[in-house]
Amino acid sequence: MTNLVDRVTVPTLLTVASTPTTPGSIDTALLGEYLLGTWADARRESRRLMKDAAFHRDDSLNLDDQRERVLGQLRLLADAGSVLKAFPTALGGEDNHGANIAAFEEIVTADPSLQIKSGVQWGLFGAAVLHLGTQRHHERFLPGIMSLEVPGAFAMTETGHGSDVAAIGTTATYDEATEEFVIDTPFRAAWKDYLGNAALHGTAAVVFAQLVTKGVTHGVHAFYVPIRDAHGFLPNIGGEDDGLKGGLNGIDNGRLHFDGVRVPRENLLNRYGDVAADGTYSSAIASPGRRFFTMIGTLVQGRVSLDGASVVASKLALFIAITYGSQRRQFTAADPTKEEVILDYQRHQRRLLPKLATTYAMSFAHEKLLTAFDGVFSGARATDADREDLETLAAALKPLSTWSALEIIQEAREACGGAGFLAENRLTQLRADLDIYVTFEGDNNVLLQLVAKRLLSDYSRKFRNADAGALAGYVAGQVGDAAVNRSGLRKFVQTVADFGSTARSVGFVRDAASQRQLLTDRVQTMVASLAGRLRAAQKASPTEAAALFNANQNELIEAAFAHAELLQWEAFTEALEGVTDARTVEVLTWLRDLFGFTLIEKNLAWYLINGRLSAQRAAAITDYIDDRLLPRLRPHALDLVNAFGFEPEHVRAAIASGAERARQDEAAEYFRVRRAAGIEPVPEKSLTKKSLTGKR
Amino acid sequence: MTNLVDRVTVPTLLTVASTPTTPGSIDTALLGEYLLGTWADARRESRRLMKDAAFHRDDSLNLDDQRERVLGQLRLLADAGSVLKAFPTALGGEDNHGANIAAFEEIVTADPSLQIKSGVQWGLFGAAVLHLGTQRHHERFLPGIMSLEVPGAFAMTETGHGSDVAAIGTTATYDEATEEFVIDTPFRAAWKDYLGNAALHGTAAVVFAQLVTKGVTHGVHAFYVPIRDAHGFLPNIGGEDDGLKGGLNGIDNGRLHFDGVRVPRENLLNRYGDVAADGTYSSAIASPGRRFFTMIGTLVQGRVSLDGASVVASKLALFIAITYGSQRRQFTAADPTKEEVILDYQRHQRRLLPKLATTYAMSFAHEKLLTAFDGVFSGARATDADREDLETLAAALKPLSTWSALEIIQEAREACGGAGFLAENRLTQLRADLDIYVTFEGDNNVLLQLVAKRLLSDYSRKFRNADAGALAGYVAGQVGDAAVNRSGLRKFVQTVADFGSTARSVGFVRDAASQRQLLTDRVQTMVASLAGRLRAAQKASPTEAAALFNANQNELIEAAFAHAELLQWEAFTEALEGVTDARTVEVLTWLRDLFGFTLIEKNLAWYLINGRLSAQRAAAITDYIDDRLLPRLRPHALDLVNAFGFEPEHVRAAIASGAERARQDEAAEYFRVRRAAGIEPVPEKSLTKKSLTGKR
Repeated sequence: MTNLVDRVTVPTLLTVASTPTTPGSIDTALLGEYLLGTWADARRESRRLMKDAAFHRDDSLNLDDQRERVLGQLRLLADAGSVLKAFPTALGGEDNHGANIAAFEEIVTADPSLQIKSGVQWGLFGAAVLHLGTQRHHERFLPGIMSLEVPGAFAMTETGHGSDVAAIGTTATYDEATEEFVIDTPFRAAWKDYLGNAALHGTAAVVFAQLVTKGVTHGVHAFYVPIRDAHGFLPNIGGEDDGLKGGLNGIDNGRLHFDGVRVPRENLLNRYGDVAADGTYSSAIASPGRRFFTMIGTLVQGRVSLDGASVVASKLALFIAITYGSQRRQFTAADPTKEEVILDYQRHQRRLLPKLATTYAMSFAHEKLLTAFDGVFSGARATDADREDLETLAAALKPLSTWSALEIIQEAREACGGAGFLAENRLTQLRADLDIYVTFEGDNNVLLQLVAKRLLSDYSRKFRNADAGALAGYVAGQVGDAAVNRSGLRKFVQTVADFGSTARSVGFVRDAASQRQLLTDRVQTMVASLAGRLRAAQKASPTEAAALFNANQNELIEAAFAHAELLQWEAFTEALEGVTDARTVEVLTWLRDLFGFTLIEKNLAWYLINGRLSAQRAAAITDYIDDRLLPRLRPHALDLVNAFGFEPEHVRAAIASGAERARQDEAAEYFRVRRAAGIEPVPEKSLTKKSLTGKR
Repeated sequence: MTNLVDRVTVPTLLTVASTPTTPGSIDTALLGEYLLGTWADARRESRRLMKDAAFHRDDSLNLDDQRERVLGQLRLLADAGSVLKAFPTALGGEDNHGANIAAFEEIVTADPSLQIKSGVQWGLFGAAVLHLGTQRHHERFLPGIMSLEVPGAFAMTETGHGSDVAAIGTTATYDEATEEFVIDTPFRAAWKDYLGNAALHGTAAVVFAQLVTKGVTHGVHAFYVPIRDAHGFLPNIGGEDDGLKGGLNGIDNGRLHFDGVRVPRENLLNRYGDVAADGTYSSAIASPGRRFFTMIGTLVQGRVSLDGASVVASKLALFIAITYGSQRRQFTAADPTKEEVILDYQRHQRRLLPKLATTYAMSFAHEKLLTAFDGVFSGARATDADREDLETLAAALKPLSTWSALEIIQEAREACGGAGFLAENRLTQLRADLDIYVTFEGDNNVLLQLVAKRLLSDYSRKFRNADAGALAGYVAGQVGDAAVNRSGLRKFVQTVADFGSTARSVGFVRDAASQRQLLTDRVQTMVASLAGRLRAAQKASPTEAAALFNANQNELIEAAFAHAELLQWEAFTEALEGVTDARTVEVLTWLRDLFGFTLIEKNLAWYLINGRLSAQRAAAITDYIDDRLLPRLRPHALDLVNAFGFEPEHVRAAIASGAERARQDEAAEYFRVRRAAGIEPVPEKSLTKKSLTGKR
């Protein structure tokens, strides 16, 4: 996985025809095209479709009507076909996995409920049949799934088990006599829960259950199970409505329970494990653990697409807040007759511009992830190592982008004040809908722990007999940069120590290599330190080993977080190479620096404690952000959000429409005219105080 | 203001009758009573009332019905009278300002919309008449306001001006001929906006406008203006509905505009400024600026009560998440047949326990604020300095508690996973409703800037000719601790340097004096540094001065934030003295240490850069949290939330009801019985691998 960043590439963009830009301005058309990435056509097609008001979130509807409307929108989407590209060409799809996800992500501007409900139908329910089933399932089930003739649920999560899917309680016990599987949810905690399409619309489900045959349990497998007909639940199936949620209320999430429900043997989605008529189990994957993770791994697209949708939502939120911040005025500073534009305030810049930098980093990192995903699912780069790398990359990036999206949307909402709280300006609704992204398709903390374990196992694989030299080599290998070698690292640390007394010396981190070194060094040192502390677990009792692991759990997750930040930074840095306009490169480099500096600033204590930065240099990081980067980037803020390429039909926020500017202009003109006419009243403070106080 | 913390005291609690506690456990009954504070009776009365389902948020209603329901609830509240305590005894109130706010804050458990709509009616509209009006207004208007016969809006904010109230565009021009004021909103930005009760229910409003008479504008004053009768808006008044919001949808926020609306001269709320029949303006406060701030200052109770409501909401969220975290199990660690309780995971503790510490700190700090508020409004401690201190304290605490509430509720929601996203578990709805608290009644960033300016002016008042000695004295004075004097500070810094090489030495910050010193030193050093940098502004041009101020704005706000954190820490520390049970004091002291350590950890880079902590000691801070404080506090987490004293009718979250424990027990029993009976299938991995792979 360590070289994944190097293996997948963002294509260099050919210069597209664009209107000449003002000298000093970035080329927003060029940048906008670049941001659309490899699957620009799919994104454009999806965006074009999402301009149609028929797809837009309607805040005026009650719960029932929202659900009904989104179901109807799903039908329109099925007809348009743009989100069905991943299905087999033979069945009307395009076998195009990257384009499919790209198109899917763009739906978020219309309505996240629509996005996630279509994700449930085609990305989970349909993808499970596609990836866990075999030819017979594809032919039999996929046409109905694709056309939405059969809306379905993805019945994996249970009330009692979300993160630990391997421990679910639902069973599918094979009955040789009838050649059927018998599905049971034997206790309340085993009920399937939080399933989209389960409360109302689903007529079938892919049910995950412990496969039991001949008295042996073979672990979690997936079964195609019809659940409803026109009259409601089929016999021995019941359910509950999850009711109103914090967001995504266009989706009918619910619970399902099964009491001896029988399905034919052939309904086992048998790509990775099968049961013969006589009840004999077989699988090409010997290890039950590896088999489980292989099956689960085929469903990585959920995480990939949430990462991408978070990028789109973050762009939208910042477009709104930065547009408004560039028009809104409040308080006078120097000129008492003219109020300041709020984005000119340093604090406002501090609140929004680092988040803009993060959004760009997320966007470029997502392009890498999507490229890796497409490589695996197209078969072009699909070794076991590729799959494992993809899963780790998704597990690293999805937590950061989904958390960041919530922070970004929230800051955007606060930066718009009371106007930001109105549904008509979309930010609160967008945040509410994306809230669940941080815990579904893998709880963020659990995913980061998986990443940490991968980092540890990579580390221990390389350094069974670790010494300092090997460690430094690992650091270099991790970033795939030959220039950053062991001696370089050592020298660098020395340089920091030597230059400790030089105030405001930030020059040393302005180049990419130094930022990379600081960020990489932190990840690797944390991993090496954790590996050292956890080594004792190998010889400890299970209880002691678990306690030792638990005592380091927080830092493990922080190490994974730092690793994911590095991946984002690397993606941003590499993306700079693909931009052909010099001014745009310059401004984007400042933005990348802001991203890198903000990461270093956030973890400044670590760099100080571990002797990587002197106190003076650490202080200079903050000064450089405030005194250099924010003022430099401020004039380009609007261009940088305009490059996201949203059209008014995607934005649909009153405050980002120019209405604020019109109001400001009207008020200013009102006062100008009155002052010119001499009819504006005189301020009291311009009179003598004496004449006003006391009764006269 | 610097001594405010010392001047207001939290009463020492008499030991109340409580059931004997298990040895080693804290006395939750005693602590619960203590947390209720000075106005425990008012809180208990309000909580008792809020158990009634008639007051509870009903998630099933559409926008119109929510608004109607909350209006009806307001009537019940008016009848119950508990939120009318602040009004004059002569009119049926109790002249009891502290009790009034305490009762008001507890409404948040029932429905934040009900809280805020009652705040609009009695805390803003009513309080404006009470505090800005005089006897004639009280007699004429308050009875209808108190009884809700006259629902009203508080028409201060405009679309164009929120934070900068002094610059509002609405005018009230005196017409000597008719002895009336003529109210105008001359352009769109001057429309009153975001006003509760404006869209539907309000029949009157207190309208803030620039008072103009005899061609002079005397600044913002308040006017009582009827706006609607049974047929709708009165002539020349119009409005718009703000529509759906991110939360608080039980309130009918809207816009108002006025086109030459005439009200009698007597409708000017004339406590601080009046206009005679002939148009002559008079005020007891000569300075227009001071007059404005005096009028605005009377409305501080909004900020005070949001601070308190945020405390109550944070307690509720943590009660839910910690109760659930103590019952929910996921993943096995040492014992493969028994899953771990999720609150036993270090990461889960790291996510929730520091937030529990913050909530206790917020709670004790709020008690101080409410005491100061009551002192000013009862007249017991109501000098100009007292008022100014109160306003600064409110401006410091409200931002921290409202932001913390959002973070706490969000972490609670994420810690409950998918269940946390269901409306039935309340967290998402609570967060949505409290979202606006961070920007209304004073945008948090703007409030903190006010605090920073106060810190700077206090500083410059004391040190017009500052030297190092005076600074150290100021540091000591700030915390009101004679023991922390200049030499002590210097010695301490030395000690830190000397002991730099001792690993894991955290003993030095475990005592309160050292924590205080670290926290205080940071505030004071930041303020002194900022004062030094801003000194040049005195001799600069307005443009240069504004630029200089702006270049330091972010750090100014951070200094104010640090100051507010110190106030919270001081309040927590002082509160420890009032607890009479030794074990409870011990556990609360760990919790206070966790709060203090978390603050220091958050700003660790500052302590390192400024030489206050050596690298080893800085690293030890984190280790001490992870290795000592979290494990010590874990066994008491449930007791610490039980001490909040909520009853099931306040909590109303399915996952905090014991349902999760019942599900866990049922599942465990199911497996126990089957294992005992020998009917549980054998796991595949216990068989030989060979027999399973390949076709046979």
